[in-house]
Amino acid sequence: MLTPPPDAPVLATVRPDWVDNNGHMNMGFYLVVFDMACDTLWADLGLGAPFRARGFTTFAAETWVNYVRELHAGQPLTSTSEVLGHDAKRLHVGLALHIKGNDAVMAYSEQMLLSVDMDGPRASPFVPTVAARVQMLATAHRSLPRPAYVGRVISLPAAKTA
Amino acid sequence: MLTPPPDAPVLATVRPDWVDNNGHMNMGFYLVVFDMACDTLWADLGLGAPFRARGFTTFAAETWVNYVRELHAGQPLTSTSEVLGHDAKRLHVGLALHIKGNDAVMAYSEQMLLSVDMDGPRASPFVPTVAARVQMLATAHRSLPRPAYVGRVISLPAAKTA
Repeated sequence: MLTPPPDAPVLATVRPDWVDNNGHMNMGFYLVVFDMACDTLWADLGLGAPFRARGFTTFAAETWVNYVRELHAGQPLTSTSEVLGHDAKRLHVGLALHIKGNDAVMAYSEQMLLSVDMDGPRASPFVPTVAARVQMLATAHRSLPRPAYVGRVISLPAAKTA
Repeated sequence: MLTPPPDAPVLATVRPDWVDNNGHMNMGFYLVVFDMACDTLWADLGLGAPFRARGFTTFAAETWVNYVRELHAGQPLTSTSEVLGHDAKRLHVGLALHIKGNDAVMAYSEQMLLSVDMDGPRASPFVPTVAARVQMLATAHRSLPRPAYVGRVISLPAAKTA
């Protein structure tokens, strides 16, 4: 997992209307912020506006969120991200949310994204320039310790379920 | 998995501001609707307003979303839900989103929720009336075929990752 740089941009500040009866950010809005984190990573991978202008995009296939610590209104959020795997049409990423200026992981999201040709829409291989950047970032991230959050299954021990 | 009844209430209609550059509901907003689906299930389980008034609530620990089919602005959404497992302090549920009047699963969310005493807040066993309702619903749902969406791990085959 990566550590946020001191100049990490603020993706969003926790909005009062994101806070629920529990006085913390509602679980529903975490993916709204993780989507913003994706946009930042997408720019690095060449998956941003120029890519979309050519008729390509990405669709989320699966997302998973681990709610690590409560978030409260007014907290400025930054993110870190890592490429966990990829093939010709798929990108497996891990994203962490942090409060600006603090390395602690407040939430972690693992996501599987598909490369899509909007002429369909249908799954389609990443164009070569994007594939090269994905490969480069995957190589750079390969030596990072795999976060404990990755590859989990949501379940209760069988003996404890009724 | 359950089939939505004809009189299933509409949780929400896909809002134009939930639609992204891809012309479909952005991945970030699915959990906003699944949270509404939880509220419906919570009322059945006795985890609604009276429970909160006594100082108890639930926190999401982990959520997972499988994006099955695209959703578009104006579509009215309903949900079905099932109890997949539970123990004294935890509830493992599966929720499906449907377009009103259609049984097709548009998205499926698996979630692990914690029973929480707001005096802390700290994890705390479900109060007896809730535990009894959870047990009753879990028993009713035990004979349902387990959805293919449940218990998945987000990953790419090792041979394909770079």
